[in-house]
Amino acid sequence: MAPKVNTQPPKGTRDFLPLDVRRREHVTGIIRRVYESFGFEPLETPTFERLDTLLGKYGEEGDQLLFKVLHRGEPLVHGIRDAAQYLSKPGSLIEGRSGETAPGAEKLLSDIGLRYDLTVPLARVIAEYQGKLPPIFKRYQIQPVWRADTPGKGRFREFYQCDVDVVGTASRLAEAEVIGAVGESLVKLGFESFEIRINHRRLLRALIEHAGIPVELEGAAIVAVDKLDKVERDGVDKELSLKGIADDARKKLLDIVAVDTPLSLDQLADRLAGHPGALAAIQDLRSIFELVAPSEARRFLTFTVSLARGLGYYTGAIFEIAVPDLSGSLGGGGRYDGLIGMFSGKEVPATGFSLGLERILVVMEERKMFPAALSGVDLLIGVTDGTVERDAIGLAAKLRREGLRVDVLMKPDKPGLIRKAADERKVPFAVWFGAAHGGRAGIWSASTPGDKTVAFEEIAAAIRG
Amino acid sequence: MAPKVNTQPPKGTRDFLPLDVRRREHVTGIIRRVYESFGFEPLETPTFERLDTLLGKYGEEGDQLLFKVLHRGEPLVHGIRDAAQYLSKPGSLIEGRSGETAPGAEKLLSDIGLRYDLTVPLARVIAEYQGKLPPIFKRYQIQPVWRADTPGKGRFREFYQCDVDVVGTASRLAEAEVIGAVGESLVKLGFESFEIRINHRRLLRALIEHAGIPVELEGAAIVAVDKLDKVERDGVDKELSLKGIADDARKKLLDIVAVDTPLSLDQLADRLAGHPGALAAIQDLRSIFELVAPSEARRFLTFTVSLARGLGYYTGAIFEIAVPDLSGSLGGGGRYDGLIGMFSGKEVPATGFSLGLERILVVMEERKMFPAALSGVDLLIGVTDGTVERDAIGLAAKLRREGLRVDVLMKPDKPGLIRKAADERKVPFAVWFGAAHGGRAGIWSASTPGDKTVAFEEIAAAIRG
Repeated sequence: MAPKVNTQPPKGTRDFLPLDVRRREHVTGIIRRVYESFGFEPLETPTFERLDTLLGKYGEEGDQLLFKVLHRGEPLVHGIRDAAQYLSKPGSLIEGRSGETAPGAEKLLSDIGLRYDLTVPLARVIAEYQGKLPPIFKRYQIQPVWRADTPGKGRFREFYQCDVDVVGTASRLAEAEVIGAVGESLVKLGFESFEIRINHRRLLRALIEHAGIPVELEGAAIVAVDKLDKVERDGVDKELSLKGIADDARKKLLDIVAVDTPLSLDQLADRLAGHPGALAAIQDLRSIFELVAPSEARRFLTFTVSLARGLGYYTGAIFEIAVPDLSGSLGGGGRYDGLIGMFSGKEVPATGFSLGLERILVVMEERKMFPAALSGVDLLIGVTDGTVERDAIGLAAKLRREGLRVDVLMKPDKPGLIRKAADERKVPFAVWFGAAHGGRAGIWSASTPGDKTVAFEEIAAAIRG
Repeated sequence: MAPKVNTQPPKGTRDFLPLDVRRREHVTGIIRRVYESFGFEPLETPTFERLDTLLGKYGEEGDQLLFKVLHRGEPLVHGIRDAAQYLSKPGSLIEGRSGETAPGAEKLLSDIGLRYDLTVPLARVIAEYQGKLPPIFKRYQIQPVWRADTPGKGRFREFYQCDVDVVGTASRLAEAEVIGAVGESLVKLGFESFEIRINHRRLLRALIEHAGIPVELEGAAIVAVDKLDKVERDGVDKELSLKGIADDARKKLLDIVAVDTPLSLDQLADRLAGHPGALAAIQDLRSIFELVAPSEARRFLTFTVSLARGLGYYTGAIFEIAVPDLSGSLGGGGRYDGLIGMFSGKEVPATGFSLGLERILVVMEERKMFPAALSGVDLLIGVTDGTVERDAIGLAAKLRREGLRVDVLMKPDKPGLIRKAADERKVPFAVWFGAAHGGRAGIWSASTPGDKTVAFEEIAAAIRG
């Protein structure tokens, strides 16, 4: 007897059984084909990166969510001793908060960590392969990332991102292409009502300045506005107040970003006539709307003055996918001209959009958006007599050459049980024969009642209808 | 200025730039389609597993090659203290071999590790989802695995395996199907001369017994014979001698497994007439040959009495792919009836075959087996004037709807530079137009000299030929 062991997947991760894999591949296949049709090229990077590459890019909270890989051998022995010494120093552990003081020790025990997103690896690749990549690099990347977050509904420790980015140009065509690719992907997946919300970081900053909020509180104000969907006007007001922002400044800001009928771009242009930064941002947004106009995505693109995006690194237009009756988004992105250059030391303009695979799958499952037939097998072959197994393999080989996906049952059975096996596994056809087959088989179809007998040569045609 | 940082991928890992990804997907796409045509169903498991699941399954050496993930927070603080205490115990470190004593400490700092192969996760899945999976489960799995090995030519720390297994039956149809699927995959990839070598663990054990080698040295003898390809007869003889196997026993074994014209199955059956185990194994192999006969794989299946496979867990037929002029194999497998049940406590028969993606890619690259056109883009659209960028996006949207993969250049350029961009990126067609286009564009083709002018509506037809 084997010992009783825990055979569940580790916390926050999942096993994908055949139907799960097929659904995931249905979605990633469509996204991949659309991204390719827009001329984006595939990139894949390693599962782990140097901690030097990862640390300090995602804020303090992000650093703590990195999965770090343990040293081995001698470096581990030294690391343990140094880490123990580090922990014994006074002040290295704050009462009751020992976890938060571990980062100093972690660096002594690890120098690589699992990929946290697909953007920092892209920045590393751009720095490493200068000259080998085209000066304007349109890349997509569909790979898992890992975060040691508390797992919850739709939140995992291992999950996939589907990123599309244009690196190396400040042209608004880049925004038009990433928005076009993401919009077309969602349409092709079957989404009918969604919004691609768009706003601009420089417009938001102008509004914050216009409201009289001091520049040093700009970041905090953006983080607060980002929560509008979740906590509504009162919640944002409270957070802004806690940050020390005065009553009239809060009101002035919220009267623009948190009202029922939000201002149009034209109205904002009037209101902010004295802010050259705001006007440039508005002009930027107008160009993007114009360039997206010929695409499928245009129907879904909505200027949303309250859109803020939490991340610090955005510098221009920002985007987010909103679906009715779903809190949170299916994806987001924006222009981030300062990030890609961090490893090479020269500024490289870039803009990108990321779709979150797991949330797309949750919504598609809830709304029954998957095609009914995602089974992998077209036909099950069974024998009623063990002596003709070789004939079954021969028939299977012939039908596979004709392009069918064919499974052969591994033991002889009665016709009724062969039909039942096909039915249970949702395989649309079954055939069976015994020792005296004479080149003919019984055939069952899930869609037509009653069995028939057909010659081996007629099976492919019978299945193709 | 950013600090100068190392932007190479971590040791033993690789970045896959667009052409690399396309080549990898060309190969995995073919393998996946063949596996599906044989009725195998896809499975995916998490990147990391509990150390409980992984440790003790790959031998002592395998355990040391596991990448382990560091605890975080409070468990890390406790772990460091316990590990330091562990290391301070006398005898925990052997002079000059500190690395090898770390495993005891590692367990205090980690409880999950990166997947080392795809077989142990399969065993865990079989135990976890009993009743949810069909009683005979034909699964394939194409995913990366990680081993902290010393990297070398064609040997990486992150590499992909393409596994196909039949779990839950002792039928020889299972062997026939995994051999058929792997053979057909290699044929579809373009391999013409390779061998699917087959032998049987019970035959090998009978030969070892027949030679007079004591049963307790059986494992060592199998490991030694496994190296025949690398170290030849003399090398194996030396290793067997070092293990204490007598001269006449060594000669008797090597006269069967290491001769220029090896014995056929019939000759072996004569020679081993008094060994019921050997005869049963030979009968097993004959059934497999008979069941593989109708498949493409039959041409490549070769009985190879010297084939041993290093791994301990095989219990029946064993297989390996050999390619001329290549030391080492492209894949291997066999029956392993004792392994899958280790988590559930009941014996579950199983057989499988694993193709190694990285070696397949190396051979295909060396032998120029990739299709010439693996470019992702069919057409490049450029404008000679910035005012018509919107028209370029409109034309791209139209052509993408017609199924073409279209890239739009991000800045206006002269026709010559637009053609040059297409040429350099191996895009087969380019079109360009300026402010006075009147619905017509210049078109260049990599395969036909001279430019032409075509109406926008004629571009798709011109490209499709």
